[in-house]
Amino acid sequence: MAAPASGPGEGTVKSKAVRMGVLAASIAAPLFAGEGMWMPQQVPQLAPELAKMGLKLDPARLADLTGDPMGAIVSLGGCSASFVSPQGLIVTNHHCVYSYLQYNSSPQKDLIESGFLARTPGEEIPAAPDARVWVTTSIEDVTDQVLRSSGEKLSDLERYTRVERRRKELVRDCEREGGVRCTVPSFFEGSKYWRVKQLEIRDVRLVYAPPRGIGNYGGEVDNWMWPRHTGDFGFLRAYVAPDGKPADFTKENVPYRPKHFLKVSTADVDPGDLMMTIGYPGKTFRYELADEVREAQAFDLPQSIRYRKELIRILEEAGKANKDVAIRAAARLRSLENYLKKYEGTLEAFERAKLIDQRKAEEKELATLVAGDPAARRRHEEGLTEIARWNSVQMKTRERDAVLEWLFTASPMLSQANTLWRLAGERPKSDIERTTGYQERDWKRLKAGVARAQRTIEPGSDRAGLRFFLIEAAKLPKGERIAAIDDALASTGERETSAAVDKLLDRLYGSTKIADARERSAMFEETRAQLEARKDPMIVFAKGLRSTLDDKESRDHEIAGAMMRLRPDYVALLQKLRKGRVYPDANGTLRVSFGKVEGYSPRDSIQYAAQTTLHGIVEKETGQDPFDSPSLLLAASRTRKLGPYVDPELGDVPVDFLSSGDITNGSSGSATLNASGELAGLAFDGNYEAMGSDYLVLPEVTRTIHVDTRYMLWVMDAVDHAHNLIREMGLPVRFPGSETSTTARGVQ
Amino acid sequence: MAAPASGPGEGTVKSKAVRMGVLAASIAAPLFAGEGMWMPQQVPQLAPELAKMGLKLDPARLADLTGDPMGAIVSLGGCSASFVSPQGLIVTNHHCVYSYLQYNSSPQKDLIESGFLARTPGEEIPAAPDARVWVTTSIEDVTDQVLRSSGEKLSDLERYTRVERRRKELVRDCEREGGVRCTVPSFFEGSKYWRVKQLEIRDVRLVYAPPRGIGNYGGEVDNWMWPRHTGDFGFLRAYVAPDGKPADFTKENVPYRPKHFLKVSTADVDPGDLMMTIGYPGKTFRYELADEVREAQAFDLPQSIRYRKELIRILEEAGKANKDVAIRAAARLRSLENYLKKYEGTLEAFERAKLIDQRKAEEKELATLVAGDPAARRRHEEGLTEIARWNSVQMKTRERDAVLEWLFTASPMLSQANTLWRLAGERPKSDIERTTGYQERDWKRLKAGVARAQRTIEPGSDRAGLRFFLIEAAKLPKGERIAAIDDALASTGERETSAAVDKLLDRLYGSTKIADARERSAMFEETRAQLEARKDPMIVFAKGLRSTLDDKESRDHEIAGAMMRLRPDYVALLQKLRKGRVYPDANGTLRVSFGKVEGYSPRDSIQYAAQTTLHGIVEKETGQDPFDSPSLLLAASRTRKLGPYVDPELGDVPVDFLSSGDITNGSSGSATLNASGELAGLAFDGNYEAMGSDYLVLPEVTRTIHVDTRYMLWVMDAVDHAHNLIREMGLPVRFPGSETSTTARGVQ
Repeated sequence: MAAPASGPGEGTVKSKAVRMGVLAASIAAPLFAGEGMWMPQQVPQLAPELAKMGLKLDPARLADLTGDPMGAIVSLGGCSASFVSPQGLIVTNHHCVYSYLQYNSSPQKDLIESGFLARTPGEEIPAAPDARVWVTTSIEDVTDQVLRSSGEKLSDLERYTRVERRRKELVRDCEREGGVRCTVPSFFEGSKYWRVKQLEIRDVRLVYAPPRGIGNYGGEVDNWMWPRHTGDFGFLRAYVAPDGKPADFTKENVPYRPKHFLKVSTADVDPGDLMMTIGYPGKTFRYELADEVREAQAFDLPQSIRYRKELIRILEEAGKANKDVAIRAAARLRSLENYLKKYEGTLEAFERAKLIDQRKAEEKELATLVAGDPAARRRHEEGLTEIARWNSVQMKTRERDAVLEWLFTASPMLSQANTLWRLAGERPKSDIERTTGYQERDWKRLKAGVARAQRTIEPGSDRAGLRFFLIEAAKLPKGERIAAIDDALASTGERETSAAVDKLLDRLYGSTKIADARERSAMFEETRAQLEARKDPMIVFAKGLRSTLDDKESRDHEIAGAMMRLRPDYVALLQKLRKGRVYPDANGTLRVSFGKVEGYSPRDSIQYAAQTTLHGIVEKETGQDPFDSPSLLLAASRTRKLGPYVDPELGDVPVDFLSSGDITNGSSGSATLNASGELAGLAFDGNYEAMGSDYLVLPEVTRTIHVDTRYMLWVMDAVDHAHNLIREMGLPVRFPGSETSTTARGVQ
Repeated sequence: MAAPASGPGEGTVKSKAVRMGVLAASIAAPLFAGEGMWMPQQVPQLAPELAKMGLKLDPARLADLTGDPMGAIVSLGGCSASFVSPQGLIVTNHHCVYSYLQYNSSPQKDLIESGFLARTPGEEIPAAPDARVWVTTSIEDVTDQVLRSSGEKLSDLERYTRVERRRKELVRDCEREGGVRCTVPSFFEGSKYWRVKQLEIRDVRLVYAPPRGIGNYGGEVDNWMWPRHTGDFGFLRAYVAPDGKPADFTKENVPYRPKHFLKVSTADVDPGDLMMTIGYPGKTFRYELADEVREAQAFDLPQSIRYRKELIRILEEAGKANKDVAIRAAARLRSLENYLKKYEGTLEAFERAKLIDQRKAEEKELATLVAGDPAARRRHEEGLTEIARWNSVQMKTRERDAVLEWLFTASPMLSQANTLWRLAGERPKSDIERTTGYQERDWKRLKAGVARAQRTIEPGSDRAGLRFFLIEAAKLPKGERIAAIDDALASTGERETSAAVDKLLDRLYGSTKIADARERSAMFEETRAQLEARKDPMIVFAKGLRSTLDDKESRDHEIAGAMMRLRPDYVALLQKLRKGRVYPDANGTLRVSFGKVEGYSPRDSIQYAAQTTLHGIVEKETGQDPFDSPSLLLAASRTRKLGPYVDPELGDVPVDFLSSGDITNGSSGSATLNASGELAGLAFDGNYEAMGSDYLVLPEVTRTIHVDTRYMLWVMDAVDHAHNLIREMGLPVRFPGSETSTTARGVQ
């Protein structure tokens, strides 16, 4: 779970937009025990349980998005974060600032390895051109505007198109004021739409990150694992123009002054303590039907695992021969491996929970609600039948759809060509007609992506990856063929597949300019006619694929339109069963999850405690990556330079802790508040047993892993001497004597 | 720890007979917390602590070797066991009856795989020709007889020889009555000698063993591991002649009627409960000096590990090409690997405990006891100096001594030749002059060993193993050369080592008859002249090595004679410091260890519970060896056919449990009695962290693993239907309905 939700190689198991399932995990079980990423406005209804769990705040405070503490929680896009000073200081995970450290590194100055510390605001450096901080400023229920009926009878595709258009209009109207980003996400399977307005801060600077030996301690070995000893924290600062408006980086910009910031806690943390994890979780599929889970288990996940392994093999092979290739592939590989582990774990969790049986039992229970009412019952059953029919439509091309998606994952160059060609097709339209993601508001982001791709593009491994999936395409069954690929292969004149593929690849990579950053930048501005005139083979190929992609998109939109019609009924039934206590699937909006500090038993006779300690780092230490702590840390531990950061019960500095809170990708960096609403930790991972949590929560074993703020402060105080930041957060420095022992820009 | 102490390939790190260390682990720490394999007669002095730990018996009862319960505890030679019925029924570990199952198996009837159950005494089968049960009938302090001074001044070698002769005389006198085995082991580094008399039962029959999927569940993967789910139990029966005297197997023999047998408990077991582990632990080195520990850490253990790995590699390589070779090498490999793991773990434990520093601190403390008395102090210091000098004498040839030992470990054929040649040299002497181990009383055992070797001998791998160590011998430094090897290699005429070694091996294996069981059996009876007349190259080579071996032995005896003089002083000092609370090193005599049922924390944030459950088996189950339970077991678990064997707190059938009791090799099968003196389990292994326990006990992590009698009974009742045995042990059968579902001789 170490990669942010939007990282490269995340892919999706399948586009879930059209397959939003309904119906619940553990309908009959007590619903509220750590499960649920709740909308802030739902919190007040949980007041009785929260009081019992020990909440000392008025739950109503958590419903106030712009109040304290929710107003301090921000999104970095794929990661969550929070303000911790009146000067716009932001704390998040180390792995959320990782790419910024990478961006600012050079062979001479490896900020990932050494860490980074700006001792004064003047030493802070721009994180990256596309770094953003989004501060939610309002959210409003726009369901009526989105779903308002005009009376006429619509086809499913028309329904989809109308809803999309209304969402785009609502976004357009909202963003007119400038400096904000608006979205209209769907909640509860299309039952509700809310418009979210966020301030978009574009000048984001890197302030502090510990060395790799702290921030990524345990590395891939410990990824998803508990017991964990990672100091997964880092600091940014948001800057705005002197007038307080968001602006691009300039020296004249000033620190953003958030309305609210969190108080960092040094208070004791004990098992059983309430912890609230607040952030922007990306996506879950908690309400899929039994049949949909079966499809994920039987096809989507295994196919994704297989393709992932193949691409990993190809990239590793390519990297063996060439160090530069290895470096360019590193981030892709890390992400591919992370999700490989996750999907394998998901399958294990399905097995462990016998999820299909569980969902079937739940569907049965739901059916009893309408058993007595013939009309409702017929409606329910017809709905199910129709959902099943649409799912089977989609399943008919599942092999092809998987290949289509992986062509672009395997070949960043083809993916770039596709983006450029598509954008050129969208640009002539009026903005409201443009496909979501290709509107004027998206161009800057798209352009940055086109530029950033240069760090990943490497024609040799690109070709090897594309080769594999072209051969997969050639093996597709009748009825699932991709015409553009068939045509391109036929045009080579070779009869044998691999010879034809190689000849096609010779053509594609022989003269394409896609790998050239300057050319790509030029193409970004061009019309389709201009692009066609280039006769760039990669563009030509992307153009050819477009018709299949458009067909698929149109079919998916039709299915989505049908689901919009069908699924809200089920949510209504579920709400009835659960007496309104239903949380919506994660959708990138601000959520709060409640859990307790709690260990678990992974297997018979083994119990994992909820907290780890500094002593555990010394135990794990090998002196070799990934278990190579900085010597200053080991020395401080040895000399018991621990100060007030010692946990009274543990008798040592606590490092990480577990809670039964509920997170998913995108939650990385989420503020973890104690019962008094103070920052006690940052969520950064799930445990191995939680890997299926996109689909289900297993209360006995699903846990969130947090870094304890006391560890963060101890490292900042006793090891990295980030005393300026401790003071900025309003806390006392306990080990002030040693500031001279480190240098700015490079913690050790 | 799964192999009995006397198993093949155990080897020794170095002959410790001459290096018995003194001085204590954790002198200052509270001494009595699970540590200590106490002599029964020492138990009464521990009464206050034992009462606090919850002992419900009069501790004096445990000092009565022939009373209840100690009279029920027997030795199998390398394993411990106990009587559990008035009809001589004996319970021990599955791995202690493993070789008997193997002996009685055939390709058509694999008793290891299927298990074995005799439903009537008539179905019981002889375990193996050399199977023995030893029942301790008396022990007496013979220190005065052994150490009695004749007034004259003796050299160290003379002292050794005199002590050995007196021990042999004491044995001879004791064994005169027949049917008994006597030994005169040394206690407290030669301070004390006790004569132990044991009834030697020679008709031992196999009664019951569960299938491999229970008895060796987890196999090598789980060996030394916790959490554990092994049903490591099996049953034998002791038979004697109708007159009650020990006799060889005949149909007319009758079950031995022990004076005492243990009551098998079905009572609850909880963490914190007192557990007494009673058996015959083999050998420990708890009183080595810091310098001696350093030598073990720097040379003995690493060298043994290196040679062990090489021999494992060679045997595995040899087995790859040939299935029969692999089968013959299997037991040797298993033992080599077991001790490899153990020695690696021992080094880890040394590191973890910083054992050298600890011992040094303890030696300092001991020195303070004599600081005020100049004479005592001088004596103490001179003693230490002399011990160090003798140790350095031994270290001078440590490389050679290691190679010498491993020549025989690597080549069972050379080892056989050596035994035959040596025996022929000892036979002409009067029995009292014969070297210990080659007296008339040993001939039967030696002969059985010569016959049994046939199962292991395989010339191809034998040659490959010997080749490696001959090359090692050729690399020995000057002053450590082995003359016989130098001569043999020189005689080949080859200048290059490996060519010479190969030529020598051609000669050795070309015409030797050592691999022929019948020839070996004939040679067993021959004189040296007859053996020489054979001109068998392996015998000739063994004869050549004899002079080096004799030199070494003579030097070792001299050192042992010196240590007999020097070390008792240190024990006396230690006794003074510990106020008499010193337990002697394990030496194969009956001991009792006290501990509590107690889990442990292997690493930061991980806690292992003290008990495992049937549920844990289901969790581990893969259906593949070693995690392949019999289907009857899984079915009984699934249908909750658990009966009264459920642990109330665990809510499930308990499987194995941990105690803080202290064991070592040879303790396998030890009766584990609860506070009321009833059999609650059988010790069968140590945990990974306990692997250094030959040298030291780490109270936080050193644990003994026991199989719970409730699991044993549940398997016998609900799975294997060994109802006849349950009834014989005086317990009710809870699942009587299903006896027809199994067959005799083959549990499933």
